[in-house]
Amino acid sequence: MDERIALERVRVVLSHPSHPGNIGAAARAMKTMGLRDLMLVAPRHFPDPDATAMAAGAADLLAQARVHTTLESALADCVLAVGFTSRRRDLSHPQQALREAAPQILAATESGTVALVFGNETSGLSNEELARCQRLAVIPADPAYASLNLAAAVQVACYELATGAAAFDAPKGGAGNAATLEDLEGLFAHLETLAIASGYLDPAKPGRFMQRMRRLFARTGVEREEVKVLRGLLAALEAKARR
Amino acid sequence: MDERIALERVRVVLSHPSHPGNIGAAARAMKTMGLRDLMLVAPRHFPDPDATAMAAGAADLLAQARVHTTLESALADCVLAVGFTSRRRDLSHPQQALREAAPQILAATESGTVALVFGNETSGLSNEELARCQRLAVIPADPAYASLNLAAAVQVACYELATGAAAFDAPKGGAGNAATLEDLEGLFAHLETLAIASGYLDPAKPGRFMQRMRRLFARTGVEREEVKVLRGLLAALEAKARR
Repeated sequence: MDERIALERVRVVLSHPSHPGNIGAAARAMKTMGLRDLMLVAPRHFPDPDATAMAAGAADLLAQARVHTTLESALADCVLAVGFTSRRRDLSHPQQALREAAPQILAATESGTVALVFGNETSGLSNEELARCQRLAVIPADPAYASLNLAAAVQVACYELATGAAAFDAPKGGAGNAATLEDLEGLFAHLETLAIASGYLDPAKPGRFMQRMRRLFARTGVEREEVKVLRGLLAALEAKARR
Repeated sequence: MDERIALERVRVVLSHPSHPGNIGAAARAMKTMGLRDLMLVAPRHFPDPDATAMAAGAADLLAQARVHTTLESALADCVLAVGFTSRRRDLSHPQQALREAAPQILAATESGTVALVFGNETSGLSNEELARCQRLAVIPADPAYASLNLAAAVQVACYELATGAAAFDAPKGGAGNAATLEDLEGLFAHLETLAIASGYLDPAKPGRFMQRMRRLFARTGVEREEVKVLRGLLAALEAKARR
């Protein structure tokens, strides 16, 4: 299936959100990752100017967002509902790390709409709401302070799905331009020759000069073009030294 | 190296942030993922009550945050600076997807502090700021609307590092309790026997009943305990049918 269609079949359900700013920020988070289907269950304030302000360029998602009075009706047409919780040991329901759940969530979109369900900012999902979910997902966090902001949790969930679907062009670190080992060895040999010729490096007591140079270039991730430029400089220095 | 120490060696640098709320939300995002070192370059307003409000339980990170006047001095003691940008084709600097960059960022913490550098909300990192970074990381996003909120980008970056370091306990989907294939086959055989015995299923014309049952249970991810309960139910039905 087309990756973009998979993401469009993922619904974000915010149940009983207190702060309208979080609704807007969640809409923005969704849109950046290619999700469009926002559903609200009994929001305290909506529509609201704070929601609109925080949505920034995602006001269209807010305008299309549907409001339900119960979680049950918000999930009625879904093939799977994934509840987001903090790590809890008192739940009989199995919990999965988000990264582990993502491929299964994406696969389920082949059958229909999948809902990601987020609870109230303070109290999270109630036991009754959890019971409406077939799976529970956890964003692993520091147990000393695991309290992600609601919209931040939505952003991470949407990012994980978009990345799992490889939906958007991800740069490959300019690998096409990376210097080859041969390029680098040519540079090191050139550098060493010049260092010796300049008198800076004593071939009888080379110390760790070349080792340092190797470490330096290993760390920075050199591009082919940069090796060319460096060798151009070395050649110029060599020519000057000969004159 | 201990995963938690690696995360504590990752610094978040916000350069020229306009909105103090974003500074607070970034601090909260960091703390949830085990990062503590926040540095600000020429913030428009700081300290500020909006920053404190959005930091929630991460006020301690704000209190410890250092303010610099230039990016250069904020990075002076770092072994690596990673600039966060939108996907751009006009940069000569190689860009890497965040997920690809994360292991290298974590590895670099073995040598010292690594900075994640985020620019102004509206204009991002300037060319001069980009030039101070040795790597550029991109959070892949929908090209139609790639504008992540500043704190949301910080949250995703910190999440990716914490997940890459496997720093926090991630639930394994209750795998210990998952039904084995043998459990499931036992359940299917039991179900089929009973369906035939009940007259519901005609063994001469079985149709797709068992196939549907198999798909159903494949989708839900059954636990061993649930198989036990279901088979208990089937056994009771069988016993009743015999009476």
